[in-house]
Amino acid sequence: MNLDYYSVKWLDNAVSILDQTLLPAREKYLTLTDYRSVIEAIKSLRVRGAPAIGIAAAYACVLAARQSSSAEEYNRAMDELAGARPTAVNLKWAVDRMRRVLGVRAPDSDESIKSLLGEATNIHEEDAAMCEAMGRHGAELIPDGASILTHCNAGPLATGGIGTALSAILVAYHAGKRIKVYANETRPLLQGARLTMWELRKQGVDCSLMCDSAAAFAMSLGMIDLVMVGADRIARNGDVANKIGTLSTAIAASRYGAQFYVIAPSSTFDENTANGSQTEVEERSPEEIVSFGGVRTAPPGVEAFAPAFDITPAKLVTRIVTERGVFLPGEPLSGNSCTKSRPAQS
Amino acid sequence: MNLDYYSVKWLDNAVSILDQTLLPAREKYLTLTDYRSVIEAIKSLRVRGAPAIGIAAAYACVLAARQSSSAEEYNRAMDELAGARPTAVNLKWAVDRMRRVLGVRAPDSDESIKSLLGEATNIHEEDAAMCEAMGRHGAELIPDGASILTHCNAGPLATGGIGTALSAILVAYHAGKRIKVYANETRPLLQGARLTMWELRKQGVDCSLMCDSAAAFAMSLGMIDLVMVGADRIARNGDVANKIGTLSTAIAASRYGAQFYVIAPSSTFDENTANGSQTEVEERSPEEIVSFGGVRTAPPGVEAFAPAFDITPAKLVTRIVTERGVFLPGEPLSGNSCTKSRPAQS
Repeated sequence: MNLDYYSVKWLDNAVSILDQTLLPAREKYLTLTDYRSVIEAIKSLRVRGAPAIGIAAAYACVLAARQSSSAEEYNRAMDELAGARPTAVNLKWAVDRMRRVLGVRAPDSDESIKSLLGEATNIHEEDAAMCEAMGRHGAELIPDGASILTHCNAGPLATGGIGTALSAILVAYHAGKRIKVYANETRPLLQGARLTMWELRKQGVDCSLMCDSAAAFAMSLGMIDLVMVGADRIARNGDVANKIGTLSTAIAASRYGAQFYVIAPSSTFDENTANGSQTEVEERSPEEIVSFGGVRTAPPGVEAFAPAFDITPAKLVTRIVTERGVFLPGEPLSGNSCTKSRPAQS
Repeated sequence: MNLDYYSVKWLDNAVSILDQTLLPAREKYLTLTDYRSVIEAIKSLRVRGAPAIGIAAAYACVLAARQSSSAEEYNRAMDELAGARPTAVNLKWAVDRMRRVLGVRAPDSDESIKSLLGEATNIHEEDAAMCEAMGRHGAELIPDGASILTHCNAGPLATGGIGTALSAILVAYHAGKRIKVYANETRPLLQGARLTMWELRKQGVDCSLMCDSAAAFAMSLGMIDLVMVGADRIARNGDVANKIGTLSTAIAASRYGAQFYVIAPSSTFDENTANGSQTEVEERSPEEIVSFGGVRTAPPGVEAFAPAFDITPAKLVTRIVTERGVFLPGEPLSGNSCTKSRPAQS
């Protein structure tokens, strides 16, 4: 698959990220040499998508090590990185992997830096490989002629590879399946309109945009066969934290008999979270809802309810696809995946 | 109730409308003396809301009569007015009432104009009275302490009086009930953010804005007791055509046990439509989805699915409130209303 862009990349002594807040109008890469700039980029969604922020944070640990004059300072930097956004568990997972690299070694020796960069590179390369595997497993769930709805952006931009939900769609498309993709625009930050449509059109996929609130109506008209979304955190029981609007889409899919697939790497599973109600859901600034692109859309001073994510209960999820295969929600990933052995339920 | 604005008003020889496309930033009234300007105002949503466009069209018939040199020309103008937007049945209903005024009389005599203005004024005054009555009936459905979600704008701006869904909310509020109102922003044109929040804040109601896709999550958290919306057309079986996003909200309300009330004048009922699938749903321009306030939000040239309305099946509607009382969906309005005689079901 030919991608002429990337979400995050290590460039010698810096983290290079595509500033996704400027898409689709401008394709501009930022070169970040301070770990604090990476935190700013994560908080302000210049780099976003659970796997991509994990990778960016891993590389930022290398920067932090170089910037730190003591292990204490380095550990504080890693704490800041891990806490940059609360809901996506991959961020914490990646920083935890980076923590284990040095043990008691000093953070700023050449050898330490080399070890850290090695582990960050591993995290990145593993993510790319997991995307390929998710794409293969997920594509098998897409029949020829399928009409697919996706929410937010779960494409290459959200990962270090070819995406999570979009990996399945792109693999199916490049394998010659005739598919039609609908993208929810995904308010408030319009990742569906700005990012998913941009990625799908680059690959030549037949795609159409809709308002999030139109998804239920489209399903009631029989326009959607299946839904594919990514995830920011999956609890032990299979409850899924993902971009706000996922729950609404899942409820409608259940009502109208569309399959609802969640596609995410195993690093998205949080063994410490028994169910979705234990997941901290990040609240964003009301500013993201009351204005867009500098244009105010509500009277000054209004209050807003602005969760960035919601929790979709496991019972609304048809299957969860990881790099290891296709699973029932709540099923342990360590076992054999359920794919093919059990028929999909609607 | 003190309203220091109006949606539509007859001013001597012109129709005055508040240009709602400029709200909340600017409160600007347009003085329209050509019926074609009223059609433009209806098509471009300067005046919107099913009852308000009916009233604007009725007054525009007076302008059309004055501009017409023959009955044929006048009839053509009325056809254009009735067809300005396809889904709201009040528009056709109001023009049909105006058609019946003249019979075979010439459209441009002083007497004819006077009769037409009389009927248009009746339509307006009846609407204001119906709003008051809907407010009284609807307010009884709001318990003290209730948390209410509304979609789009069904306030004074949408009518010739104090609104449909908002009439109930405003009557309850001014009667001293402690209520909290959540407004869906209502993409793509943000009538909830721009208009409903503006109206609720003018009255001092405690209100909070959310993205349409957050409504299901808010309901899953127990934040919403009941939903109140208006309607553009109600079929004989009780299926409701209303702003896109209503169906999605109704499905979530049904799942999480929130009451779902539709509040609309009897002129919204279409005896010629057996069920919602027969309702023509207006598709708007993709431009409304791919850009906002001059800012592009999607790559150039993208396709979009852009229905202005959706159809909520009768079984998802708890009750329909009209000026005549509170009814079960599908129940004939001619009978006694069901209010109090039957317990509400969730």
